[in-house]
Order: sequence, then C-alpha cells, then structure tokens
Amino acid sequence: MKPMTRSSDRELILFANEAFYSAFATGDVDAMGRVWSSESPCVCLHPGVMPLYGRDDIMESWEHILADPSISEIIAHSPRVIELGAFALVTCYEHLSGGSLVATNGFVREDGLWRMVSHQAGPCTDAPEPDEDGEEDEEPRLH
Amino acid sequence: MKPMTRSSDRELILFANEAFYSAFATGDVDAMGRVWSSESPCVCLHPGVMPLYGRDDIMESWEHILADPSISEIIAHSPRVIELGAFALVTCYEHLSGGSLVATNGFVREDGLWRMVSHQAGPCTDAPEPDEDGEEDEEPRLH
Repeated sequence: MKPMTRSSDRELILFANEAFYSAFATGDVDAMGRVWSSESPCVCLHPGVMPLYGRDDIMESWEHILADPSISEIIAHSPRVIELGAFALVTCYEHLSGGSLVATNGFVREDGLWRMVSHQAGPCTDAPEPDEDGEEDEEPRLH
Repeated sequence: MKPMTRSSDRELILFANEAFYSAFATGDVDAMGRVWSSESPCVCLHPGVMPLYGRDDIMESWEHILADPSISEIIAHSPRVIELGAFALVTCYEHLSGGSLVATNGFVREDGLWRMVSHQAGPCTDAPEPDEDGEEDEEPRLH
C-alpha cells in the first residue's frame, strides 16, 4: 500500500467496483443501493436472463439475490479499468460456488463519486483462478 | 419511416449498433474496423472466454470470427439505448444458429460519430424471438 495524498479517478473507480462486490458478499441491500446511480439510466444483466432496466427493477432483483445466502459466496478479482472520461468500465472475474463468470461494470462520475450504471456477468470457461492472475496494478495500463 | 431533418444522438447510436451487426453478418472486416474506436481504449468480451483489451487484439479476433461463414448467421433485434452523455450503451438480443445471446455494446461520441468501445455477449435462456419483442421505438423510453 503506497501512501496517497489524493485519489485518482482510477482508484475511485476501483473503489466503486469493490463496493459493489462488498455489498454483494455481505448481502447489504442498502450498500448496494448506494453503489448504483440514482440519477442516470441503469441496466443490469444477470447471467442468463433478460436485462433489467431502471433503478427500481434492478434494486428489486438485488433484494431477492442478496436474501439468498448461498449466492453471496463471491470472490471478485483481477479488475481492469477502462477510463472513458466521465464514464468508466471495469472488467473482472467473479468466482461463485457454481463456477466462474466474467463481468463488465459501468460507472459514471456524479458529483465526484463514481456510481454504477451497468452490470453484465456471463460464464467464462477459461477464467483464471483468483491467485493465478496478477493484480491490475501489475498489468500494463490500457492508456 | 418518418422524414428526418437532423439525426438525434439516439438515432446515431442505433445506427452505430446496426453497423456493428451489419459488419458481423456480412463478414466485412474493414467495416468492423470502422465501427470500433481508434482513439479510445476498448474491450471485447466474446461469449465464454476472457476479455480482449485494445483495438489490435479485438480486431484480430474479428478477423478470425468473420472468416468463419457459419458464425455470420446472426440476427440482432430489440435494441435499447441507454444514453449517458458522450457515452452510450445499447442492449440487444443476438440470434445465432447455436442459440440466443444478449449483448451490451458501448459507444463513445468522437467528432460527432459514435464508435464502439465495448462489446459483451452472453447466453440468454429467456430471450424473446425477433418477432416477439416490439421494436425499441414502440417501447417506453428510458429517460
């Protein structure tokens, strides 16, 4: 851990991504609600099913998911940030009891905070194990 | 078809999304190259495998995919646009011979044109048939 005087956008984006998985792993619906944007249009694609549009339907789905203790066993690893101005994408792998997924999470900058506006997770047959792949800091930056 | 004097961003985003699937269906690598951004960082998540980062690796993957005539049998339908300023997401369904996928495509506005910066497709067991779901114009707008 290096000392930081001011967080870069990239660090704040990674923090928002971690907050999403922390809310997921702890089953904290209120925290999940703070992760998602209240101001921007949102879309959520849970694995295998049709997309959900809009904060209300998305949060309703998370209430159901987070109420199931078996689903909260999740390890997210190897995040990579794609910075696109006031928008950012983070890809990462999700290890769950049923297998590995790869996810793309979209964030927008709102009043200095990064809020989630999109999530899509799908199966990934060649996902690395959590300890196989280096941390993002050790990988080449995208730009 | 209504007469248009000036295309809205939403129409231009849908046009960019259609250009992606047109390049896919016709196996046109050059057209696919024009769809993807040359200026912004890009990520592409083909179904089931690890993400590809950066235009070079992404275009190399499309060269392989588009060289396979069996894969070009694709029907994309029911696009929905999520406008986020200079960034946009489009969700849609992809019907291929092997089954149905749901995709999220990300676009950035560059010099008045919308260029693809992200693509993720994954299985969708409850995808509607192309003629089951209304055109996006008939669906409620997201915002």
